[in-house]
Amino acid sequence: MAVIKKFKAVKISQNHLLGIQDLSFSEISHILDEAKTFIKLNRSSSKKTDVLRGKTQINLFFEPSTRTQSSFELAGKRLGADVMSMNIVNSAIKKGETLIDTAMTLNAMHPDVIVVRHQDSGAPNLLSQKVNCSVINAGDGRREHPTQALLDALTIINRKGKVEGLKIAICGDILHSRVARSNIYLMNMLGAEINVVAPKTLLPHSVERLGVNVFTDMKRGLDNCDIIMMLRLQNERMQGSFLPSAREYYEYFGLTPDKMVMAKKNALIMHPGPMNRGVEIDTNLADDINKSVIREQVELGVAVRMACLKIYCKKT
Amino acid sequence: MAVIKKFKAVKISQNHLLGIQDLSFSEISHILDEAKTFIKLNRSSSKKTDVLRGKTQINLFFEPSTRTQSSFELAGKRLGADVMSMNIVNSAIKKGETLIDTAMTLNAMHPDVIVVRHQDSGAPNLLSQKVNCSVINAGDGRREHPTQALLDALTIINRKGKVEGLKIAICGDILHSRVARSNIYLMNMLGAEINVVAPKTLLPHSVERLGVNVFTDMKRGLDNCDIIMMLRLQNERMQGSFLPSAREYYEYFGLTPDKMVMAKKNALIMHPGPMNRGVEIDTNLADDINKSVIREQVELGVAVRMACLKIYCKKT
Amino acid sequence: MAVIKKFKAVKISQNHLLGIQDLSFSEISHILDEAKTFIKLNRSSSKKTDVLRGKTQINLFFEPSTRTQSSFELAGKRLGADVMSMNIVNSAIKKGETLIDTAMTLNAMHPDVIVVRHQDSGAPNLLSQKVNCSVINAGDGRREHPTQALLDALTIINRKGKVEGLKIAICGDILHSRVARSNIYLMNMLGAEINVVAPKTLLPHSVERLGVNVFTDMKRGLDNCDIIMMLRLQNERMQGSFLPSAREYYEYFGLTPDKMVMAKKNALIMHPGPMNRGVEIDTNLADDINKSVIREQVELGVAVRMACLKIYCKKT
Repeated sequence: MAVIKKFKAVKISQNHLLGIQDLSFSEISHILDEAKTFIKLNRSSSKKTDVLRGKTQINLFFEPSTRTQSSFELAGKRLGADVMSMNIVNSAIKKGETLIDTAMTLNAMHPDVIVVRHQDSGAPNLLSQKVNCSVINAGDGRREHPTQALLDALTIINRKGKVEGLKIAICGDILHSRVARSNIYLMNMLGAEINVVAPKTLLPHSVERLGVNVFTDMKRGLDNCDIIMMLRLQNERMQGSFLPSAREYYEYFGLTPDKMVMAKKNALIMHPGPMNRGVEIDTNLADDINKSVIREQVELGVAVRMACLKIYCKKT
Repeated sequence: MAVIKKFKAVKISQNHLLGIQDLSFSEISHILDEAKTFIKLNRSSSKKTDVLRGKTQINLFFEPSTRTQSSFELAGKRLGADVMSMNIVNSAIKKGETLIDTAMTLNAMHPDVIVVRHQDSGAPNLLSQKVNCSVINAGDGRREHPTQALLDALTIINRKGKVEGLKIAICGDILHSRVARSNIYLMNMLGAEINVVAPKTLLPHSVERLGVNVFTDMKRGLDNCDIIMMLRLQNERMQGSFLPSAREYYEYFGLTPDKMVMAKKNALIMHPGPMNRGVEIDTNLADDINKSVIREQVELGVAVRMACLKIYCKKT
Repeated sequence: MAVIKKFKAVKISQNHLLGIQDLSFSEISHILDEAKTFIKLNRSSSKKTDVLRGKTQINLFFEPSTRTQSSFELAGKRLGADVMSMNIVNSAIKKGETLIDTAMTLNAMHPDVIVVRHQDSGAPNLLSQKVNCSVINAGDGRREHPTQALLDALTIINRKGKVEGLKIAICGDILHSRVARSNIYLMNMLGAEINVVAPKTLLPHSVERLGVNVFTDMKRGLDNCDIIMMLRLQNERMQGSFLPSAREYYEYFGLTPDKMVMAKKNALIMHPGPMNRGVEIDTNLADDINKSVIREQVELGVAVRMACLKIYCKKT
């Protein structure tokens, strides 16, 4: 964590964690430093603290999620908070209530933090203007998924010592991916060089303006990279006009050993999960313990979320 | 709370909270007094007590619910209980098990309190005869929703000092509303004068026998009122023979500024939620912080449920 | 528990509880002895210990379940663990993730125990090879449901003092029942004589090799029995080629007073639930407090699961 330690951790300026774009370098450093202490706790025999005892955390998920919601739920419980998880796919919204009414209702119950995932970009921002507690964005539409990028950074730093100077390829469905967007902002800020690799139909308009090199040929995009971040290809894309077929996608944009050789010898493979084995990634590469840090991402994800919950809860 | 403080809080005579009709004036006073202490706790930095540590609370919801279930879940957790929430819409009932078998099964696990919502009127009463623990009714069919009425009373007392002598209009779908029924019982007992306002098709037969004035003209029904309780209009009513259209309903029975002027200048607007904005209530009135106490109802709802859980759990 | 107390409780040799077949006599004795202490705790006013404080328990249910999941959830919470319940019927699996990826993801979050129910026989075994924590099988396909058999044994011992020498009839859908299989293994090991009673279409091939007497006539199968274990008949069996009709099934294989008289006078009725009243069991017999120990099975089930969680969590 050398590159980051140069900066003294300062107080967090915002009440909410809505996106990487709102964070300063020192704030990121503060979150990652805090997260490191929780890695150890999570690996120990007793994984419990009372840091958030008496605090109320509400997980408000408008999209189904296994890993992110689990990660936040365990994070909150291990910090001693009272955690309530709500899946609003089949609840009050059915009765015609708006996002804001749902949020305002929950806000009136005095939570200290609301962790929200929503299919619409900007929903957590809107919500943060209406409530008294902290809001942590757990993924909004195609916009941001800040804790995912933070856990990715922590994983890289844990393995490579730093992000600065690394060459990172982000590959796959850049267009629809909030993970890609948050990672582009964060890795840029931390001093990496970023390649994005995708078929043209899955590249956002003017993506180069985000400060990335753009490739539609995967071998060239992976050339000499330190980190390969694969993105999940949503099944629904494969039936539309975005892609000819899953098989052809795998042929050209799936991470396979023959493409992997283009990257540095000690390059690491990352994936936010859940994976489509045999679609965007070769199943053996995904499980290769010398190259893949996919499980470590999940592990450090709990630590990053504990850090965010602790830091942002304390602000209220 | 002047009117209520005249009566000395006595012990609760029942093991269960099934309906307002079963409560005495002094029992209501006892619940509301207890709830007041929890308002403060919920507004403080640390919202946790150990009052119910070692106790088991089961939330058994046969109808989907966001706010009532959340309110009971947070209430139990803040009291230190072990809380388990069960939504039986898609569970054992599918396998053909009866309500009673489900309840008896849960009862055998030694809960201290079961909070139950069920689509059938009287289901919580039936359940209470079969189990050893306390049962709290969180809404049964068209019959009662006692904690909603109690939180409404607490909200009114918090704002107006008392319920006695106030003129309260309950407006909307009286026929299908357990909220209306519980409030009519409670506000009558606390000495209010009650107007019910609804189209004829949404009025129960012989509703005047409950001790209310009946109006089918909303302006006349709101005349000189202190409190306007709007009820939720369920969408399914609008397709049936009950109502011509949502638009026409809004015209005649929606709470709008032009009808609101009939009430007292300092009249308060209440709604149990979730709201249909633009159907039963004008969206600006719903959000008018000088008139609407809808958020406060939700806030005090947690306090009222903490009081009920504490009082009824202790009985077992 | 005389027969069992002869053996000194030894340490558990396995990290996982996958099936009765993996357990030794002394391990079973150890679990049941531990469970006895929790029966008392669950009947007391304060049902809470800190034995598993700091431990994380994940309930991973790929099949819907009310009673088993509730039982494990309350068991973990009363032991002070952080409990997270996941129903994967409508979650990540939808996104195409495999069982193993889901398990590996959760494993990376450092749980201490995963309680898993899965429709495929052997799924918990597969899972146990991939994770670092303990795995407890809460029912896999047609294979095993070890905690159900353990709670059945505890119930019998609680009532009859021992299992050894008793004559136990297991009646109904033996073919599809993991409860039957686990009970056959366990009751055999504890020295009971076992009759299985079912129509030919619901008997596994060569079932007698499991060490049971086979009957297709229920009266003969119940003759002189001490224990009658009824199995749940899944509704989907009634539409297929397994059975002519629910009514005919009840006539020949439902537990009715006229068949019950064949068993010993003080014979006990057991059922793992949920029951189909009027299909596999007469509703009055199910509720007969002198004969039916169905509620006691549920009660002791929580105690058995607390024992298993305590014993297997400690191993990690």
